[in-house]
Amino acid sequence: MGNLPTREDLTNAMERVRPYVHRTPVMTSSALNKMSGARLYFKCDNFQRMGAFKMRGAINAILSLPTEALERGVATHSSGNFAQAISLAARVLGIRAIVVMPENAPRIKKKAVAGYGGEIVLSGNSPQDREAKLEAVVAETGATFIHPSNDIRVILGNSTATQELIEDVPDLDIVMAPVGGGGLIAGTALAAHYFSPDTRVIGAEPAQADDAYRSLQTGVIQPSINPDTIADGLRTNLGDVNFPIIRELVERIILVEEQEIIDGMRLVWERMKLVVEPSATVTVGAILKEPETFDGKKVGVILCGGNVDTSNLPF
Amino acid sequence: MGNLPTREDLTNAMERVRPYVHRTPVMTSSALNKMSGARLYFKCDNFQRMGAFKMRGAINAILSLPTEALERGVATHSSGNFAQAISLAARVLGIRAIVVMPENAPRIKKKAVAGYGGEIVLSGNSPQDREAKLEAVVAETGATFIHPSNDIRVILGNSTATQELIEDVPDLDIVMAPVGGGGLIAGTALAAHYFSPDTRVIGAEPAQADDAYRSLQTGVIQPSINPDTIADGLRTNLGDVNFPIIRELVERIILVEEQEIIDGMRLVWERMKLVVEPSATVTVGAILKEPETFDGKKVGVILCGGNVDTSNLPF
Repeated sequence: MGNLPTREDLTNAMERVRPYVHRTPVMTSSALNKMSGARLYFKCDNFQRMGAFKMRGAINAILSLPTEALERGVATHSSGNFAQAISLAARVLGIRAIVVMPENAPRIKKKAVAGYGGEIVLSGNSPQDREAKLEAVVAETGATFIHPSNDIRVILGNSTATQELIEDVPDLDIVMAPVGGGGLIAGTALAAHYFSPDTRVIGAEPAQADDAYRSLQTGVIQPSINPDTIADGLRTNLGDVNFPIIRELVERIILVEEQEIIDGMRLVWERMKLVVEPSATVTVGAILKEPETFDGKKVGVILCGGNVDTSNLPF
Repeated sequence: MGNLPTREDLTNAMERVRPYVHRTPVMTSSALNKMSGARLYFKCDNFQRMGAFKMRGAINAILSLPTEALERGVATHSSGNFAQAISLAARVLGIRAIVVMPENAPRIKKKAVAGYGGEIVLSGNSPQDREAKLEAVVAETGATFIHPSNDIRVILGNSTATQELIEDVPDLDIVMAPVGGGGLIAGTALAAHYFSPDTRVIGAEPAQADDAYRSLQTGVIQPSINPDTIADGLRTNLGDVNFPIIRELVERIILVEEQEIIDGMRLVWERMKLVVEPSATVTVGAILKEPETFDGKKVGVILCGGNVDTSNLPF
């Protein structure tokens, strides 16, 4: 426990991000409660600024920098929600954000980053290309690198979603979050640990991107090998900052098949009238595939985001 | 003015439906505010029970019946949201609901009605067939006919959406609702008339189903001729109960083209993360096509429903 961030680290993050993020609503669904046998409380970070919880980590990370670093700006590599989050957070806080994106990133993603004022630097498509380009950017500009998920400042920012949920819905038996890079589930677990210690923390991960599951089983970070899932936010690797937190505070990870993710997405769209991305419904898939785990329980579910290309849906 | 329902009729309806409907949230969108130049307040009745405002009118209509009528149940003809609303309202209140639906109604609609416990009676596909079947049902069962939109009890129930909106967001310059059968815009206008008299009421109607627009222009109810719009909830005719209210209290109706409806739908889905049906975004299309009308204004928008077949989207 010695290396965990402290309760004060979490409350400080909450104070820091509060003026810059939406306090998102918690929603319920009698239809999904009936189907699952659980009482589900959905924390709707699809309604967060730029459409995902990533805004929380980006704001907290930037606000944690010393003044002189702010002047030189921040840099990251991402083709997903964190690219948009760091761009918007930097603009809101009046600093520069440089985003290294692979040349083959979807045009719609590049457009969104540019729309939030992020400066895009293209790299080759391999992880090595991307990291080499990022190092060159940092060397040239003096910008501070902020990793999308394996950064304690980002994890602490992410924890504020669950801090808010616990304030609004006390006495949860279980809180669930999807697992990709590990930054959200780590923040979720820290918030539960300090503010609702009897709440069990369970992750949900695509079976076709199961590196976190395998890492928890073996106790050692396992590489992600050709992750191939519709939940595009969950294809990334665990890191050495978030994995120790996950190993200590997350009870288990449930693996979810592609069709279960899609069925969960359709349920949330049709029954809850919420636009959420597939990464957000891995949890719903997990709840419906394991009714015995959730039956009769009061369960918090972090809906991580709603950025989806509506012209390219799986149904 | 002598024939308008009274303020007390509206407050009574509010008291009557309150225990049985969700008080739906009001949401805002910085993206849509920026695009429109207005300050938009969306009343999210897509989150209402059964997914549309129709629940309000159905509950109020049933609760307005004398006890002996309750025992014989209610009947309606609808293949849309009112069919689901009357079925669910009747089930909640423990009475029988019979729904006359045309044989060619989509399977998904029949399934939804049956799912809420409505008893489906099939009719031929013409309006004449439908009305003949309804009359036969009423004669046989003694059920009370409740029209989906041209019924003062339904209109008063519908008014509660705008009553809530006005409580939550005072001092609206304009309130907008879509116009189909006229039951929603009539209820909206009544609520504004009594509880926010300085608020102007503007309707939005598909150009391809413009009977209400033509009726307002001529002062006489005009028939709907081959309405052909994606906004399937708005293909119905005005009636003699709601038209006088509309003529007296609605300032004007803006006509909206099909592509504008679809563009509005996509905006609400992608930027607001809300699943809404095309009938709900005719208003958004109207606001974006007439910026001069809405610029700088505080505008309430009734999002009427979110029941949409996600496997059959226009984008």
